[in-house]
Amino acid sequence: VKLWGGRFRKPTAPELEKLGQSIEFDRRLGLLDVRINRAYVAELRAIGLVDAAEEELITRGLTLVEEKLSASPPPKLNDEDIHTAVERLLGEAIVELGGDPSVAGKLPTGRSRNDLAASEFRLYLASAIESAVAHLLRLQRSLLDRAKTTRDELLPGYTHLRRGQPVVFAQYLLAYFWAIDRDRARFRAARGRCLSLPLGAGALAGNPFPVDRGRLAKTLGFEGVSPNSIDAVSSRDFALEFLSAAALLGTNLSRMSEDLILWASAEFGFITIDESYATGSSLMPQKQNPDGLELVRGKTGRLVGNLMSLLTTVKGLPTGYQRDLQEDKEPVFDTVDTLELVLPVMDGIVRTLGVRSDAMRAALSHDLLATDLAEHLVRKGVPFRETHEIAGRVLSLAAEKGVTPPELSLEELRQVSDAFDESVSSVWDFRASVEHRATEGGVAAKAIAQQIERAESALS
Amino acid sequence: VKLWGGRFRKPTAPELEKLGQSIEFDRRLGLLDVRINRAYVAELRAIGLVDAAEEELITRGLTLVEEKLSASPPPKLNDEDIHTAVERLLGEAIVELGGDPSVAGKLPTGRSRNDLAASEFRLYLASAIESAVAHLLRLQRSLLDRAKTTRDELLPGYTHLRRGQPVVFAQYLLAYFWAIDRDRARFRAARGRCLSLPLGAGALAGNPFPVDRGRLAKTLGFEGVSPNSIDAVSSRDFALEFLSAAALLGTNLSRMSEDLILWASAEFGFITIDESYATGSSLMPQKQNPDGLELVRGKTGRLVGNLMSLLTTVKGLPTGYQRDLQEDKEPVFDTVDTLELVLPVMDGIVRTLGVRSDAMRAALSHDLLATDLAEHLVRKGVPFRETHEIAGRVLSLAAEKGVTPPELSLEELRQVSDAFDESVSSVWDFRASVEHRATEGGVAAKAIAQQIERAESALS
Amino acid sequence: VKLWGGRFRKPTAPELEKLGQSIEFDRRLGLLDVRINRAYVAELRAIGLVDAAEEELITRGLTLVEEKLSASPPPKLNDEDIHTAVERLLGEAIVELGGDPSVAGKLPTGRSRNDLAASEFRLYLASAIESAVAHLLRLQRSLLDRAKTTRDELLPGYTHLRRGQPVVFAQYLLAYFWAIDRDRARFRAARGRCLSLPLGAGALAGNPFPVDRGRLAKTLGFEGVSPNSIDAVSSRDFALEFLSAAALLGTNLSRMSEDLILWASAEFGFITIDESYATGSSLMPQKQNPDGLELVRGKTGRLVGNLMSLLTTVKGLPTGYQRDLQEDKEPVFDTVDTLELVLPVMDGIVRTLGVRSDAMRAALSHDLLATDLAEHLVRKGVPFRETHEIAGRVLSLAAEKGVTPPELSLEELRQVSDAFDESVSSVWDFRASVEHRATEGGVAAKAIAQQIERAESALS
Amino acid sequence: VKLWGGRFRKPTAPELEKLGQSIEFDRRLGLLDVRINRAYVAELRAIGLVDAAEEELITRGLTLVEEKLSASPPPKLNDEDIHTAVERLLGEAIVELGGDPSVAGKLPTGRSRNDLAASEFRLYLASAIESAVAHLLRLQRSLLDRAKTTRDELLPGYTHLRRGQPVVFAQYLLAYFWAIDRDRARFRAARGRCLSLPLGAGALAGNPFPVDRGRLAKTLGFEGVSPNSIDAVSSRDFALEFLSAAALLGTNLSRMSEDLILWASAEFGFITIDESYATGSSLMPQKQNPDGLELVRGKTGRLVGNLMSLLTTVKGLPTGYQRDLQEDKEPVFDTVDTLELVLPVMDGIVRTLGVRSDAMRAALSHDLLATDLAEHLVRKGVPFRETHEIAGRVLSLAAEKGVTPPELSLEELRQVSDAFDESVSSVWDFRASVEHRATEGGVAAKAIAQQIERAESALS
Repeated sequence: VKLWGGRFRKPTAPELEKLGQSIEFDRRLGLLDVRINRAYVAELRAIGLVDAAEEELITRGLTLVEEKLSASPPPKLNDEDIHTAVERLLGEAIVELGGDPSVAGKLPTGRSRNDLAASEFRLYLASAIESAVAHLLRLQRSLLDRAKTTRDELLPGYTHLRRGQPVVFAQYLLAYFWAIDRDRARFRAARGRCLSLPLGAGALAGNPFPVDRGRLAKTLGFEGVSPNSIDAVSSRDFALEFLSAAALLGTNLSRMSEDLILWASAEFGFITIDESYATGSSLMPQKQNPDGLELVRGKTGRLVGNLMSLLTTVKGLPTGYQRDLQEDKEPVFDTVDTLELVLPVMDGIVRTLGVRSDAMRAALSHDLLATDLAEHLVRKGVPFRETHEIAGRVLSLAAEKGVTPPELSLEELRQVSDAFDESVSSVWDFRASVEHRATEGGVAAKAIAQQIERAESALS
Repeated sequence: VKLWGGRFRKPTAPELEKLGQSIEFDRRLGLLDVRINRAYVAELRAIGLVDAAEEELITRGLTLVEEKLSASPPPKLNDEDIHTAVERLLGEAIVELGGDPSVAGKLPTGRSRNDLAASEFRLYLASAIESAVAHLLRLQRSLLDRAKTTRDELLPGYTHLRRGQPVVFAQYLLAYFWAIDRDRARFRAARGRCLSLPLGAGALAGNPFPVDRGRLAKTLGFEGVSPNSIDAVSSRDFALEFLSAAALLGTNLSRMSEDLILWASAEFGFITIDESYATGSSLMPQKQNPDGLELVRGKTGRLVGNLMSLLTTVKGLPTGYQRDLQEDKEPVFDTVDTLELVLPVMDGIVRTLGVRSDAMRAALSHDLLATDLAEHLVRKGVPFRETHEIAGRVLSLAAEKGVTPPELSLEELRQVSDAFDESVSSVWDFRASVEHRATEGGVAAKAIAQQIERAESALS
Repeated sequence: VKLWGGRFRKPTAPELEKLGQSIEFDRRLGLLDVRINRAYVAELRAIGLVDAAEEELITRGLTLVEEKLSASPPPKLNDEDIHTAVERLLGEAIVELGGDPSVAGKLPTGRSRNDLAASEFRLYLASAIESAVAHLLRLQRSLLDRAKTTRDELLPGYTHLRRGQPVVFAQYLLAYFWAIDRDRARFRAARGRCLSLPLGAGALAGNPFPVDRGRLAKTLGFEGVSPNSIDAVSSRDFALEFLSAAALLGTNLSRMSEDLILWASAEFGFITIDESYATGSSLMPQKQNPDGLELVRGKTGRLVGNLMSLLTTVKGLPTGYQRDLQEDKEPVFDTVDTLELVLPVMDGIVRTLGVRSDAMRAALSHDLLATDLAEHLVRKGVPFRETHEIAGRVLSLAAEKGVTPPELSLEELRQVSDAFDESVSSVWDFRASVEHRATEGGVAAKAIAQQIERAESALS
Repeated sequence: VKLWGGRFRKPTAPELEKLGQSIEFDRRLGLLDVRINRAYVAELRAIGLVDAAEEELITRGLTLVEEKLSASPPPKLNDEDIHTAVERLLGEAIVELGGDPSVAGKLPTGRSRNDLAASEFRLYLASAIESAVAHLLRLQRSLLDRAKTTRDELLPGYTHLRRGQPVVFAQYLLAYFWAIDRDRARFRAARGRCLSLPLGAGALAGNPFPVDRGRLAKTLGFEGVSPNSIDAVSSRDFALEFLSAAALLGTNLSRMSEDLILWASAEFGFITIDESYATGSSLMPQKQNPDGLELVRGKTGRLVGNLMSLLTTVKGLPTGYQRDLQEDKEPVFDTVDTLELVLPVMDGIVRTLGVRSDAMRAALSHDLLATDLAEHLVRKGVPFRETHEIAGRVLSLAAEKGVTPPELSLEELRQVSDAFDESVSSVWDFRASVEHRATEGGVAAKAIAQQIERAESALS
């Protein structure tokens, strides 16, 4: 069965059938197809294009179709696409119900696969984003919970993968929290952009029957109707926006993964990845590999690839539905599935992360307080650019003498700068260093407490 | 002069100097660097780290620096980056003012290039987006103005680059309007995400002096302060979000360009591109090529490429500033410049577009009313799926007989289906076909009028 | 069953199981896994690590495994990956054969999944490329065949989608031929790069038993062995090279598709797409859409996306196998499948293309000879830059007078330039224009004949 | 001055002038434009379209143009593009030489900017690739030299960023060597594809005068002539192939960078980056950051972005020159420049790398010999899959007892498996482990020596 064969005298070439078939992937829209059909038949009834009996017959038929599609194992479908399949199944269902199958042929009145498919796809995506947002919220919750219990864990903060200044572990977890918070905001915006109903646009010129698009939108959970019939069937920027948001999330997840893989290495040793999120080697019996994190990081590739895929497909297309646009679904489905796979793993890893306070502490060496030393002199009125130089020279002196900086005598320090006095000893305290950074967003206990409050508000 | 040489005994390798130098591109942030410095010195004064005289000296020095940077031709700068250049120029300016240059060394107190550069970059981008949004608004205004005057121009609407149904030209222009409207919303959201102030995050752990970040944010025009010092210096998703929005806009502009190039071809002939937006051939004297549109379409490549560039750069980086992130600026600058180049051209082309009504009309053939024929029978109670088939057969019959469909006699039509009666003649009217599509978003005069109102609201 | 559970006390988290499972896609490597195992057991026998009876048992077991994997419908496999599955199935097969299943445990001696999987993947890809190359050859053959029969079909050659100069249709078909010829060369080079055997690299340090890697390579059809054990398990540039070659091919196919879609439109009308490669509309009964070509063009997106996916995945990874690299397979498989789908369709479309000579001819207007007019004067000694100007003015004059250029009198022409004489009338001949372009690669009959010869050589 | 104004009555819109101007970037092709012009005028002389005096005048004029373009500082050029500039400068030069400037107008006879620009671009790129290949060779030489002196440095080989098995440092350096070797082969292939001469294709239909394209090709250093005039001006796959090769190289360089950044960290401490390839922090006086490596890694982004940029631009274009193709140059130029910047830095870093043998050795712990333990039992006839399990249990036992595996008594070992005997003590030797891996490509001294020989051959 085809929905369009009327004027064709030749059969479709088998290689085109194969190339064009979308049922393998668009079957996941089946139940939404039924749902939209159900709303649409009610609308046809409202404007008198089907009568009460026909509406009931079609509606009952759709319920049967829904059951068939939901069966386990799922039915084999060899149709061109899911819309064709549902139309065929509806005809069969109506026969089963003892009705006239031609009634099924009233359903597509005034409608095209263009506006139908776009509506289903948007509905699907809005709901998939909702699920992703819920996963993101869970991950944020886990990060915040772990941040609350790690606000006293001192460790080096890194730039350029080199130890920079002492921070607390919570500050890293909260950094992730805020990145994910922005991702969540982008997902929500993308979802809003999905919820504009194309149905009623027909193939491109609108519906010639007085269906009430606003009512359809309401029934189906859309926030409004698309304002222009051509735009409704042509535009895919809603899908691109989702793919972008997911690719950006991917880069944030890749950063978290990279950190955790490093910190859990033998060389850093700051954290442990729970065994349930690691795997072993088929060759090397001693191995415990952080596969969960590696997979999360690696899947950034497909999130970016899916975005590039659809950007490339739509580039250069003229307006109006072009068959190229059939290529919109697989990248979106793959990105949706990827999010569903990676977010729970990341959440589980965060929840079960082991914190090795001693190793963190042990990585703090006194040169990490060089900035504090410089700032100590700033408080005595020396311009920072000079104190930065002085602190550098102090480190060199200590290195020369083979001692740690605190082991230098006041005399030795005063050879570098006479601004030093006995108060310098107060500098060599990692906790004090952290407590100095009390401005909003800083690592001092007070600032962290405020930040945690702000984070709680973001979740509520 | 370097801001970090203290502990280094060897000079930087010349090839690294070349690789690492950013002054060629980040000099465009010079005036913003000055502006932020000005706000920062006031803050240092407020917390007593500089006194009134020092503040005045630095502020006057910054004014001199500003003048130097604004000179024409611009000054040669061989510094490592713009922050180094401004710090050097400030020292020189203070000497010019008869002051002690070491005072300049107080300015960077508690601050790192990490939070300074991120603040400048965000401020720059927010303002660049504002400009892009203004361009988009102008383009929307032009599209809407042209739509108002072309609502009666009938032409074929296309799908698959094949004539589908009669529409009005305004509907295409409005389709572009709405696509750009969504682009504008995405740009605004990206701008909002820029306006979170990193300054005060230091290198990564926060500012050890009690600067008031909220006040700094206000003075500088930010909407708030970044909540986490590590996130503040690590995250670049604000830039990626802008690049995404621009890449999506690029695909929308490429679609408009493609349409207009096609319609302005000899083969379509629906519109004319004003000569001022065309160019000729160095070889073929007769040529008038739509170069403006081709360049707009072609530049989609760099918009997508710039996004891919930064996505790739940040992928896999650990948290904290990494020097890789210096690569954030050029793609953003290039995308900003590209938007400034292409949007005025697209706007000019739309404003000066010639509409060839006769050619549009001439492209309407009766087979474009096949859907109307099918729908005519629907109104008589025949299920659409059957009427679709019937209409197909009518076209085949006309083709066989070598006549247009309206030339078929009622008798001939009734051979195909006895649902036909004399009222069928009303079908063969292009304007009537358009008027049938009166649902919201459709092409009927009434629907177009409503849509134009909705568009006006979107602009206000 | 897992190949690595020895030291683990906790079960793998179910969400990691799901995320990490590769059996769904790597099962397509099953028969290659068997084939490599068969060669490997022979090698183990050669160095005395299995005895003759064990070798026979394993080999017979592998044959059973092969049968199971080839069964239709294919067996359910819930293992972690295909290597695990084959090892499990081998154990079961040996039991079926009455043997000791622990013998199966001798097979992975000295080997890791790292070198095994890389070997399979390379073997798979080399064979997939071979198939793609065969498709490309077929397409080239079709293009060349069609070129031979269309060397006299005059039509406008286009630049900027504007008519430029008269050419023959064969020249377009041959342009495609040469583009595909370069694609084919790139595929062949990529294939060569696949055929370097990783097996023997172990996990990363090499095989501790004296297996003869050269013999293994020969048995398995590789061209050589990888020279470095770390490189062997880390590098994926062979896959990236294939994905690049396919993305480039995609852009060439998208260009062909774009041309053919345009030329087959009502507005151009130069060619017809065979009905068997077109489809209709579910709404508009008159439609015959060039879906085959649109799908080919649209699939460029996924070819590019797959490349970007893997580029992003490998970016920033350290050396050595990382689990991220599991993401190498799906983009490659998808690109392989896409090529298998699109190339036969493109070939079919080329083979069945209808050529509408009259429409092609009708699109030739005299302004396309403006260049010839300029060149006519060049032959009389006038510098080209002037003749270009003169020809432009002739066209303007004709336009003013409302005549075609040939209709201008000699007197009128001489008002523009006194270099004109009666010989100018010879210019207005489309065929003559084509015949002038007789340099190698040009459109004159002689040049086309030479080109066709060169093309024939390229295929042999 | 424009090369195409004849038929235009309106001036070009200023915003299109700005958008379309390419002189800022294509001026780098100026000397090649002159070189091609010089060859072309000789050809025009050979076929009698210019006489000996004209040829001399033009040739002397071109020499003047060359001097002007080579001046320092370079001349301001406000022309549309470099071809226009050279044609204008040639006219001016001929006036300076006392000649008739209209003679300059004979130069573009039979030629279009389409075939001229494509020829220059290919020539430019072939030479740029040659330079990149030389850089790659130098880098390979440095890697090989360093490999020769580090073949006895034992360190852990990593997979999943976890210690796997003992290897020698040279094996890592050689792994890089081979990856770069493949990159070099890809560059060479791309260069070959550049060297097909478009000149003679005209705008698209060929040259109407009997120029000898083969002779032109020879004079200019091309390997042959493009076989098809339309293909010659349309195709950009030669540029895409280069961009692909460079993107792939980028991923290889990013891997090297990642390794070296990690190994040079305080936590690994295996190597030192020479101070001349590091930079400091403007805030933290103690910092020595591996900026050189970070920049190399970060620039992978633009290499990939440039590829994506041009792939997107060409996607969906019809055949023939389209103005979109002007966008081919900037990504290529940027990639060329990037290679020139990063390769010398990478080479310098490799040449000056410090090796910290003690730290490398110290990272070898006995669990890295777990595989050797398993293989030890294999040699006694126990199937590997069992020995893998046994070795895992030995490690667990040692962990339980709080000892290293070699500290377990034979009795304790025999509790795990009675296959153990006294020979087990030979297992606990890192050097012996390495020496076992003596198959081709392995880490044993003999295998490394062979590999180094193979590498030397690759360079000669």
